[in-house]
Amino acid sequence: MRKLVNDPFAVVDEMLAGILVAHGDLLSRTANGRGLVLKHRSPQRRVGVIVGGGSGHEPAFFGALGRGLADGATVGNVFASPSATPAVEVARELDSDDGVLFLYGNYEGDIMNFDLAAELLADGGIASQTVLVTDDVVSAPDEPADRRGVAGDVVVFKAAGARAEEGADLAAVTAAARHANDRTRTIGVGLGPCTVPAAGRPTFELPEGEMDIGMGVHGEAGIRRGQLASADSVTDELLDTLLADRPPTDGEPLMVLVNTLGATPLMEGYIVLRRVAERLGQDGVQLHRALVGEYVTSLEMTGLSITLVHLDDELRRLMDAPAEPLAGSSFGVPR
Amino acid sequence: MRKLVNDPFAVVDEMLAGILVAHGDLLSRTANGRGLVLKHRSPQRRVGVIVGGGSGHEPAFFGALGRGLADGATVGNVFASPSATPAVEVARELDSDDGVLFLYGNYEGDIMNFDLAAELLADGGIASQTVLVTDDVVSAPDEPADRRGVAGDVVVFKAAGARAEEGADLAAVTAAARHANDRTRTIGVGLGPCTVPAAGRPTFELPEGEMDIGMGVHGEAGIRRGQLASADSVTDELLDTLLADRPPTDGEPLMVLVNTLGATPLMEGYIVLRRVAERLGQDGVQLHRALVGEYVTSLEMTGLSITLVHLDDELRRLMDAPAEPLAGSSFGVPR
Repeated sequence: MRKLVNDPFAVVDEMLAGILVAHGDLLSRTANGRGLVLKHRSPQRRVGVIVGGGSGHEPAFFGALGRGLADGATVGNVFASPSATPAVEVARELDSDDGVLFLYGNYEGDIMNFDLAAELLADGGIASQTVLVTDDVVSAPDEPADRRGVAGDVVVFKAAGARAEEGADLAAVTAAARHANDRTRTIGVGLGPCTVPAAGRPTFELPEGEMDIGMGVHGEAGIRRGQLASADSVTDELLDTLLADRPPTDGEPLMVLVNTLGATPLMEGYIVLRRVAERLGQDGVQLHRALVGEYVTSLEMTGLSITLVHLDDELRRLMDAPAEPLAGSSFGVPR
Repeated sequence: MRKLVNDPFAVVDEMLAGILVAHGDLLSRTANGRGLVLKHRSPQRRVGVIVGGGSGHEPAFFGALGRGLADGATVGNVFASPSATPAVEVARELDSDDGVLFLYGNYEGDIMNFDLAAELLADGGIASQTVLVTDDVVSAPDEPADRRGVAGDVVVFKAAGARAEEGADLAAVTAAARHANDRTRTIGVGLGPCTVPAAGRPTFELPEGEMDIGMGVHGEAGIRRGQLASADSVTDELLDTLLADRPPTDGEPLMVLVNTLGATPLMEGYIVLRRVAERLGQDGVQLHRALVGEYVTSLEMTGLSITLVHLDDELRRLMDAPAEPLAGSSFGVPR
């Protein structure tokens, strides 16, 4: 492994210790150690927005803590769901007037644990709602509700966080998250694997010079494996799949997020964005806003994903609202 | 190569086209195409802060454009100095009341081109000053002024940008940058190479399981190559070298920057930061602030660097000032 680690089974706890060194003035850790709570929240916020998932996707999920974004995060082992305990602890510490909203990608382990947390909270009189992120179009082409959640996480987190920042109640924040998820589509491409430290060898094989169109953020196989093509050709194939899944309606502006995985340089993200803009321009689609960066990574996997967000007036307002993510790429300089 | 590119000789221009798609509301490109100018600058700024260098280090250098940071950037080919032309164009477009300050890492090609730009500007009546960043301790142990510039770039850019934002004149902004550089020390470790697209093969060989202590951001050989050790042991070796080069004086707080190169996950950056904090704590040194992220990368090189900034009251004020970098990791949420 080309990794700077100590005990490979301690990477998450040691990472969390480092996160507290860097951001301890802004967040605290719950008793269980795997829950993170934003210390200073705007007084008008009535709903706690809690995000989470396995580690290895940094800056997700802790990086989404901040003003205009999430209030709490739970942290699992590498590529493994967090348990219910930190979700319960974070919800209790947030002590929001109108309960909490859980936001996470649609994976079995996460559902089991967050649902258990919701039951435990209900017993204690704390209301919760859940919106699963389901943006990965190739993971269940005919059943949008069964799709996995990938980079669309950040779009859904941002929508809910911005709505909560407006002082909305639990029903309205939940509706905003669901609305954002309904309008968000992602597809990825993998060019190289990553190694989970405790496993010590790559999660999957993908020889140099090959690509996997549609690969998921844990290395889940995509829809087509073949010879690596040019950036423009790959971008076209990804875009065609996204636009077939949901064609833009007349005059509907899009937001684009190019999410580079751990080992792909930003340079390539911008090269791909250039082609996305060219293609959308040819189709007469308005590109309202574009983000490039590491938002949801997969350790040192090589590859990236393209996310299209079909904006309406409400979603545009929420995407453009100011936000101060704790770590990782920003949502762009507020304008 | 595991890369999403088209013509490998066009990567920089295609990247710039993508950067303009993402950030075109905030920046413009000069006639030459390789100069970037921030469109909206605070009215009190009297000095243009211009940064630059080769491509492949993204989010450096364009990502440092923004309020409280740099006003302009010049962009070279991959790992190659920008020419003098964009520096001249950017300085002219900025049209600052009190001239411009050039900030860049201490490399021969950059010096030659920025010095030529300074001469051309002087002929046109535009004053300029230059501060070379020289933070890489192992590149010239006994001659601090001869050292290369690496991640310390961002510390020097931030100091100058914050001082310019205060409305200071050219002499004062230059002094702030020099002061920051004098108090900044960096050392890196390489774990794996990168491939310049136009070359098509890795810049250097570094087998899995080995490390190069002191490696530079273009793969320049360090001071010791050996078996990869644990994160804590590597961190200790890096810190020992930094602290020997400049021991902290009594009561002097430090800022720490852990800069992950392109392919090293953030997780490892936080694991290393945890050990830095532990060691400084044992030595009774106050850690004022810590940043972890990709600031100055080397395409998909694996590795990271540790930067120590020896703060005094002025430098602390400048490091803590609000800043809105265009891209990449932030300077932390303003508190």
